[in-house]
Amino acid sequence: MEELVYPGERIDDLQINGLKIIQDPNCFCFGIDAVLLANFTVLKKNSRVVDLGTGTGIIPILVAGKNPSSQIVAVEIQERMAEMAARSVKLNHMENRIKVLNMDLRQAQIALEANQYDAVTVNPPYMHAEGLINPNDNKAISRHEVMCTLEDVMKAASRLLKFRGSLFMVHRPQRLADIMCLGRSYKLEPKKIQFIQSGYNKKPNLLLIEFRKSAQPELLFLDPIVIYDQDGNYTEKVLEIYNKASLEIGDDSAE
Amino acid sequence: MEELVYPGERIDDLQINGLKIIQDPNCFCFGIDAVLLANFTVLKKNSRVVDLGTGTGIIPILVAGKNPSSQIVAVEIQERMAEMAARSVKLNHMENRIKVLNMDLRQAQIALEANQYDAVTVNPPYMHAEGLINPNDNKAISRHEVMCTLEDVMKAASRLLKFRGSLFMVHRPQRLADIMCLGRSYKLEPKKIQFIQSGYNKKPNLLLIEFRKSAQPELLFLDPIVIYDQDGNYTEKVLEIYNKASLEIGDDSAE
Repeated sequence: MEELVYPGERIDDLQINGLKIIQDPNCFCFGIDAVLLANFTVLKKNSRVVDLGTGTGIIPILVAGKNPSSQIVAVEIQERMAEMAARSVKLNHMENRIKVLNMDLRQAQIALEANQYDAVTVNPPYMHAEGLINPNDNKAISRHEVMCTLEDVMKAASRLLKFRGSLFMVHRPQRLADIMCLGRSYKLEPKKIQFIQSGYNKKPNLLLIEFRKSAQPELLFLDPIVIYDQDGNYTEKVLEIYNKASLEIGDDSAE
Repeated sequence: MEELVYPGERIDDLQINGLKIIQDPNCFCFGIDAVLLANFTVLKKNSRVVDLGTGTGIIPILVAGKNPSSQIVAVEIQERMAEMAARSVKLNHMENRIKVLNMDLRQAQIALEANQYDAVTVNPPYMHAEGLINPNDNKAISRHEVMCTLEDVMKAASRLLKFRGSLFMVHRPQRLADIMCLGRSYKLEPKKIQFIQSGYNKKPNLLLIEFRKSAQPELLFLDPIVIYDQDGNYTEKVLEIYNKASLEIGDDSAE
């Protein structure tokens, strides 16, 4: 396995079915967001899935681990990240189930078949690309809408999904109106939503949302995921999610 | 005062600055929704306000009580309710501050001046008008979109509000995508949202939302209002809201 890991990188053991991931601490590392999204993603058997903006590959690897019959295309615009994700796929012997495409998602929606996928997953950049952002900074690309906007994501997901196919997304609550209205404008109807909040009495910090293509309006709220209990310890809910993928709890994606 | 109250009706003491309201237990009585909305409504001095679908008049009476310099037009389509609301206004000696209009809100948006109001408040019917609903049933009219749709409400509010004026609404979470997307289509940008949930760990049952006309997108979440603590008692937050208007806590508006 050693030849799959380059100097400066490390292998993190995801501790679910022996899954592992290669990360470079100087690059964007996956955060709690990705783990929550993979957990929120519910697939039927033999689902064909596209993960948009896959980064390290954490989402397709966790989703593939949880759904043994799924087939996933992981799209990543940054060559360095796509290449690292492809090595993580090899490390997990998932080459026959996860295909990494080094491509702009705006191109991928054309390169891939339209209206054929059961599900799309995405952990998009949360913030508008405002001010001075270095377009070569991969952390900035993962966090800010430098390379793609939320509208690009919605458009690509809508084109790829089958009738009644699902888009699973993690995002920030501040963008909720954009998320819902852009979704609808691409025939993606918000069907299920779950907020993530630091404490019982607190406003949400993150949200998980499932859209269904061409579905009827009716939004189901799930009970929120609360991270810390009143004593400042992780709640049982969070430990349960992390036990499925016993990862060290981190949030590298937050500013 | 006796002549203001008709047989079968009762006067409820709102216990805030001696405010009172006339209700008929056979008709639609106000619920916790109206009290939460009045509490959520924040006005500048000398605000001119329209309350759409005022029912018993609970919202303008509470808002006028809390904001002594405000001037409110309360629009109600049902003659019986409008007439009862007008008597409650008299009972509170607020005739010079609250004017009840017995009018369809689709007419009111034309009868009243456009682009002149600082705020609009509304506790609209929550449910779609599906199946057999008796159009003479005033409870049904208050609960279902028989006489007006959410789009009618958004359109009227947008027409009445000044540039940067605020719409304050209480509604059900299931309708959130409709609420946000219809709002935006009438230039009402969702700016502030607060969920109401029965317990700390529970999904929301109600939501309070403030839109601002022609504002920039950026949605602020407030900490949720939790109704019951872990022992099943009202939380301090709820008691605080009800102490401002020490009402008996009820929810007649829920099905």
